[in-house]
Amino acid sequence: MIEIRNAVIITNSDTGDVIKNAVVQVANGKIAYAGAAEHAPDFEAQRVIDAHGNIVMPGFVNMHTHVPMNLFRSYADDLDLMTWLNTRIFPAEDRLTEESAYWASMAAMCELAASGTVAFNEMYFFIDSIAKAAQESGLRAFLSRAVVTPAPGVGERMLDESEELFHKYDGKGRLRVFMSPHAQYTVENSMLEKIAEKAKKLGTGVHMHISETRGEHENCVQEQGMTPIELCKSVGLLDVPFYAAHCVWVSEHDMELMAEHGGTVLSCPKSNLKLASGIAPLSKMMEKGISVTFGTDGASSNNKLSMMEEMTYASFLQKGTTYDPKVMPAVQALKMATRGGAEALGLESGVIEAGKNADIIMLRTDGIRYTPDYDPVSLVVYAGSDADVCMTMVGGDIIYENGTFSFADIDEVKAKIAEYAEDMKRI
Amino acid sequence: MIEIRNAVIITNSDTGDVIKNAVVQVANGKIAYAGAAEHAPDFEAQRVIDAHGNIVMPGFVNMHTHVPMNLFRSYADDLDLMTWLNTRIFPAEDRLTEESAYWASMAAMCELAASGTVAFNEMYFFIDSIAKAAQESGLRAFLSRAVVTPAPGVGERMLDESEELFHKYDGKGRLRVFMSPHAQYTVENSMLEKIAEKAKKLGTGVHMHISETRGEHENCVQEQGMTPIELCKSVGLLDVPFYAAHCVWVSEHDMELMAEHGGTVLSCPKSNLKLASGIAPLSKMMEKGISVTFGTDGASSNNKLSMMEEMTYASFLQKGTTYDPKVMPAVQALKMATRGGAEALGLESGVIEAGKNADIIMLRTDGIRYTPDYDPVSLVVYAGSDADVCMTMVGGDIIYENGTFSFADIDEVKAKIAEYAEDMKRI
Repeated sequence: MIEIRNAVIITNSDTGDVIKNAVVQVANGKIAYAGAAEHAPDFEAQRVIDAHGNIVMPGFVNMHTHVPMNLFRSYADDLDLMTWLNTRIFPAEDRLTEESAYWASMAAMCELAASGTVAFNEMYFFIDSIAKAAQESGLRAFLSRAVVTPAPGVGERMLDESEELFHKYDGKGRLRVFMSPHAQYTVENSMLEKIAEKAKKLGTGVHMHISETRGEHENCVQEQGMTPIELCKSVGLLDVPFYAAHCVWVSEHDMELMAEHGGTVLSCPKSNLKLASGIAPLSKMMEKGISVTFGTDGASSNNKLSMMEEMTYASFLQKGTTYDPKVMPAVQALKMATRGGAEALGLESGVIEAGKNADIIMLRTDGIRYTPDYDPVSLVVYAGSDADVCMTMVGGDIIYENGTFSFADIDEVKAKIAEYAEDMKRI
Repeated sequence: MIEIRNAVIITNSDTGDVIKNAVVQVANGKIAYAGAAEHAPDFEAQRVIDAHGNIVMPGFVNMHTHVPMNLFRSYADDLDLMTWLNTRIFPAEDRLTEESAYWASMAAMCELAASGTVAFNEMYFFIDSIAKAAQESGLRAFLSRAVVTPAPGVGERMLDESEELFHKYDGKGRLRVFMSPHAQYTVENSMLEKIAEKAKKLGTGVHMHISETRGEHENCVQEQGMTPIELCKSVGLLDVPFYAAHCVWVSEHDMELMAEHGGTVLSCPKSNLKLASGIAPLSKMMEKGISVTFGTDGASSNNKLSMMEEMTYASFLQKGTTYDPKVMPAVQALKMATRGGAEALGLESGVIEAGKNADIIMLRTDGIRYTPDYDPVSLVVYAGSDADVCMTMVGGDIIYENGTFSFADIDEVKAKIAEYAEDMKRI
C-alpha cells in the first residue's frame, strides 16, 4: 500500500496522456488508482512518497541481455568480431563459474534496477546463477539457456537442461523460462526443429539471435538456400512465440514472415553499432506491422544496460537513416521501450492505469535539463538520462531508491566483481 | 593552488597514459604537476581534494553551440525541418530579448559546466547576453554573431556588429570572437567575401554551417556550380582559420580542400541524426588528414549539450556505418572531444601535463558501471555518463562541484527559464 503524490505521470496509454499533479496508489502489486489528485479515492497507504513534481512512468523492459557479461564490460573493445570472441570473450567465459556468474548477474541486476528496468529477457548459460540473482532482485526475468551444437550430443544435453530449467523456474515468482537456439550459424537444423517442438510442447517461447551480421545472413542464404528467418519458419520456430534478437540484415520476405507469424524483433541499436553490424530497418519493420522492441545486449558489447539510451539511439538512428525527422517520435520510442516489451512478453505492465502491474519508475526532474517543461515525454526521451531514475518499483516492491538497493549491498557486489576481474586480467 | 590526490589520470598525451594513484597540482591557472604520487613535489595547496580513485581528465571542448536555444529544449521535436523552423523556432526566436537570452545562456553554462565542458564555440545573436553569461561562468568561449543577408543592408549591419563585438570582447578574460557567415544558403557570395576579408584583417577565425543537409549541398552545386566548401574557397574563407559545422554532405574534393587548408570540421552527430540530416563520413575525413572535432549544436536539436554523448555517438556511428569495429576507438574519440577541440581553437588545454591550462574535470567512479576497471578510457567513452562529472575546473577555477555552481544559483536560473517559457507556450 504505497501512495505517490505530486507526480507528473506519463501514462503510456493509447491517448498518450501526461497527467500533472497526479496520484498513484499501489496495492497488492497492482496499480489501484492513477490520475488527477482531486479524483483520488481515500487510500490507507503504509507509505506516502512525495514526488515533488518528478515524473512517474512505466518501467523499461530490456528485451535482450546476457547479464553475466557485466563481468566483461570494457574488458575488450574496438576489435574485430572474431578477434574479440576468440582471444578475449571465449577465454573469459571459460573462466566463469556459478559463483562469478551469480555476482556478475547481481551487478547487472543493480545496473538494471538503477536505470529503471523492471523486466529483462535473458539468454546465456549459468541459468541457476542468473535465476538466483533475478529472484533476489525482484526483477521480472525471462530466462533461456542458449543451445549450441558444436559436437554430437552437446545440443541434446543443453536442450534437456533447458527443459529441466523450465520445470524448475517457469512461473516461480517473477521468472519465466524460454527455449533458446543460440543462432542459426551455431545450431544444426535438426536441433532447431527439436527446440521448436520442445517449446510447443512446453507452451513457451523461443529467444534467438537472428541475422545480426551481414555475413551470418548471407552465409545462411548461400549454404541453406534460405535466410535465417525463412529457415526458422521451415523448422517450425515461427509457430511459437518467437523473440528474434537483432534482425539487422533482414529481407522484405523475412519481415513479411515475422509480421504474419507475430514474431517480436528485439533490436539492440547500440550493440549493433559498436560491433559494427549495422543499423536495423526498424521503421520499415513497423510499417509492416512487426512488433519492434529494444534490448541492450550484454555489457561487453554496449557497454551499458541502459534502456533510456537504447530508445534514444533507436529514434535518432531511424530519423538519421530515413532522412525523416518525424519517424519514431519520442512518444513512440518511449512506448516501444516499456509497453512494447511488456506486451510482447505477455506482462500486464507498461501502462500506468488501474489494474496494471505496479512496474513503475520515477525520474528526478530537478536537473537543469528538465526546465522548461514544454513536453515531459520529449524531455525523457531526448534530454533524459538513466541517472535521473530515482525509484524503481516491480510488482509494488521498491527495489531501488535514491542509490540504495533493497536486494544488494552495492559495495559487496563491486568488491566481488573486482575480485573475479583480477582472474580475467591474467588471460 | 589546488592539489588533487588519489586520482586516476587519463592524460590524453600522445602515449595515451593512464596514471593510477596520481596527483595533480594546479597553480596560477596551469597544471604544475601531474603524475605518480611518489614523484609529486612538495606543494603548498590552499585546498587538497581527495579524488578517492575518481578519474581526472581534460575537460570537453564543445565546438558548435547556440546557447540561448536552451530556452527551446523540447519545445518542438519530431517535425520536418521547415515546419520546425517556420512554425516553432523562428517565432520563438522572435520573442527572445537580451534578458531572456542571458538567462537561457546561463542555463546552458550550467549544463555545460555540469557535464564537464570547459570551452565552447558559439554562433548566434544576442552576443552581449551570451558574453555576459560566459564571463560570469568562467568557461572559455569563442563567440560569433551569425550574419545573414535576407535584405539589402542587413548583412552589412551584422558584419559591423561582428567587428564591434570583436573589439569589445576578443581577448577579454576567456573570450575570443570569430566572424560568422551563418551558411551558404543564407548569405550572399559578396558578403561571404567581405566576411573573409574582415576575418583576415582582424586575424581571427570563421565559424560557419556547411553542408548540413543534402538539399543545401545539392542546391548550391546546382545554383552556383560549386559545392559550399568550394564556394568558401573561392571567396577566401579557407584562407582564415575555418570552423565548419556539420559537413554531413561533402564531396571527395571538399575533403581534400579542407585538409589542404587546415579547416576544422565541427561534427554534431546527434543533431544530424535528430534533424534527419544524415551521418557525416568522419572516418574518411580523418584518413584525409582533416581535423575532426565534436559539437552538440543547440538544445532544441539534440536535446542535450553533452559532449560525453557526442563522442560516444560519433564512435558508434562510424563503426556501425563503416562495418569496422576498430574505427574511432575509445582513446581516439576521447581525444577528439577534448584535446582535438582545444588544439583546433589554439587552447593550451586538452592534455593533463605540466604547463597546460588547468582545464580539468573529475568523474565519479563509484557507480556500478566503473567496476571492473579493466580500461578507464573505455569505461568513460562506452560506459560513462555526463552525470558522472563531479568537478569542472577552468583555468584553475572550480566552476562546478557536486551539484553546485560557483557562478549561478541553479534554482534562480530555472525559475527565470520557466518564466520565459510561459511566453513561448503562448505562440
